[in-house]
Amino acid sequence: MEAATLTRNGIEAAAARIAPYLRRTPTLALEADALGVAGQLVLKLEFLQVTGSFKPRGAFNRLLSADIPKAGVIAASGGNHGVAVAFAAHRLGVPATIFVPTIAAPAKLKRIRDSGAEVIVSGSNYAEALALSMERAKASGALVVHAYDQPEVILGQGTVGLELMAQASNLDTVLIAVGGGGLIGGIALALAGSGVRIIGVEPVLAPTLHGALAAGRPVPVEVAGVAADSLGAREVGPLAFAILQEQGVRVLLVEDDAIRAAQRVLWHELRILAEPGGATALAALLSNGYRPEPGERVGVVLCGGNTDPGAVV
Amino acid sequence: MEAATLTRNGIEAAAARIAPYLRRTPTLALEADALGVAGQLVLKLEFLQVTGSFKPRGAFNRLLSADIPKAGVIAASGGNHGVAVAFAAHRLGVPATIFVPTIAAPAKLKRIRDSGAEVIVSGSNYAEALALSMERAKASGALVVHAYDQPEVILGQGTVGLELMAQASNLDTVLIAVGGGGLIGGIALALAGSGVRIIGVEPVLAPTLHGALAAGRPVPVEVAGVAADSLGAREVGPLAFAILQEQGVRVLLVEDDAIRAAQRVLWHELRILAEPGGATALAALLSNGYRPEPGERVGVVLCGGNTDPGAVV
Repeated sequence: MEAATLTRNGIEAAAARIAPYLRRTPTLALEADALGVAGQLVLKLEFLQVTGSFKPRGAFNRLLSADIPKAGVIAASGGNHGVAVAFAAHRLGVPATIFVPTIAAPAKLKRIRDSGAEVIVSGSNYAEALALSMERAKASGALVVHAYDQPEVILGQGTVGLELMAQASNLDTVLIAVGGGGLIGGIALALAGSGVRIIGVEPVLAPTLHGALAAGRPVPVEVAGVAADSLGAREVGPLAFAILQEQGVRVLLVEDDAIRAAQRVLWHELRILAEPGGATALAALLSNGYRPEPGERVGVVLCGGNTDPGAVV
Repeated sequence: MEAATLTRNGIEAAAARIAPYLRRTPTLALEADALGVAGQLVLKLEFLQVTGSFKPRGAFNRLLSADIPKAGVIAASGGNHGVAVAFAAHRLGVPATIFVPTIAAPAKLKRIRDSGAEVIVSGSNYAEALALSMERAKASGALVVHAYDQPEVILGQGTVGLELMAQASNLDTVLIAVGGGGLIGGIALALAGSGVRIIGVEPVLAPTLHGALAAGRPVPVEVAGVAADSLGAREVGPLAFAILQEQGVRVLLVEDDAIRAAQRVLWHELRILAEPGGATALAALLSNGYRPEPGERVGVVLCGGNTDPGAVV
């Protein structure tokens, strides 16, 4: 098959390709000035996606765009990407091998195993697990599904943006959490030329896009903090970075305390349980990192819900 | 003002009246045969409503349909209705007095107090608190907001049905939990003549509609069990019962274990935390109390989320 190209048409094709397997997640428009934030918030409830995060959009698009070799597919992730690839492979009937760093949460490991994937716990962090997975792929011939730096993956994540535009056509701004940049890159591509302002939000302790924008290119940064299991890529992906740089996307930083506070507000005010990475975009609004103009219509992507409910409240 | 009449037009008027204060809660269409249930499920995410349940729809409609006396409004409830009336009164700037039985959960009491309502903890159950509230209303002249047996309240709850029909126009069946009958009565009225089959679901331990249908009229029943704090009316309201009887609405019973299991499935498969009453309608599907035909489109109202996250999983 041809290599996918990073265009809006590519996202539309991805949307058609993955639709039979995934959910069109709903949006929730809050009343004016809700949560003490000036403006009109529209939440994209992407934590309601299959597997509890946006990740299967990219995973399904990658698997459905390729001829899957006999060795199946391979990915590195102890988190939402690993769960998503294992789920997609199981659903499509192909073997999956997931390399998981030793720090991964047991609950997510169990989810990956429950999908029937082979799990290899190895490497003390994501980068090491990734390197090991690439070695294995080279030997086995398995199809690599990268967590963010592949065109098919970015196009799949971009379907969030297409849906959001159809559901809330008059947004002024969209806030999106950033890890490796696949989600924000895809949404930025989907919304290119729409006039909607796109703002990335990162934990102070995992500033991959912030570091890349300062350096003018992706650079490795130290990552830690409450959202590291979902936003803890050490470096933003070059494919996403090119999109974000071209479109002049800004990035804001939020403290871990603000992320935890946003999780609590989501539960107490909205009966939504988000994981730290899923609450990071909202944290920028609640901590006044981003202050909308009165009446501004602000979309916020709540991108994951894979957390322990008892840990939130 | 004129007394409200129980018609579909009345629900449309209620929808326009309450819209500035409330959310249009989204629906989530699941993939075919999701959760092991044959058919196509469409969940109405009413736990995302302001205050975490459908109750403010009826409360706002009652308050906005009346001239509020100087003594304000009065209600009896230690649960979602009490929270909703206190919230609506606060929002509209009128005083509220809420009679709360001594068994009420401290968390809900706090929510009622936080809205600035006067809370009177008195009576060992809902019926006693209600009787005391009626005495007080007689003395003070305050406007009574009943939890289910008032036309304005039923019309307000019926707005859930109007929204659902607009969001998922081709449903075959809708499952709705039953306590005093205000929600199912309102939805049945909204859907009258649409051909959509409406099915009530009650806990075995709180069978108010079941008892009423057997007797041909509302009769008091014993209520207990995990959902008693939201579905524990001792008797279905006569106004709702008349609607349900006329439309031949059926009712199914589910065990408490099935309700708890449905709460767990909602969290583990969908990242939704529902309270027991909010998971009761789904419990009928998961426990095979209701078996859809292949391809049948089934709406399920998830009507409340006011629970302790740690208690669900």
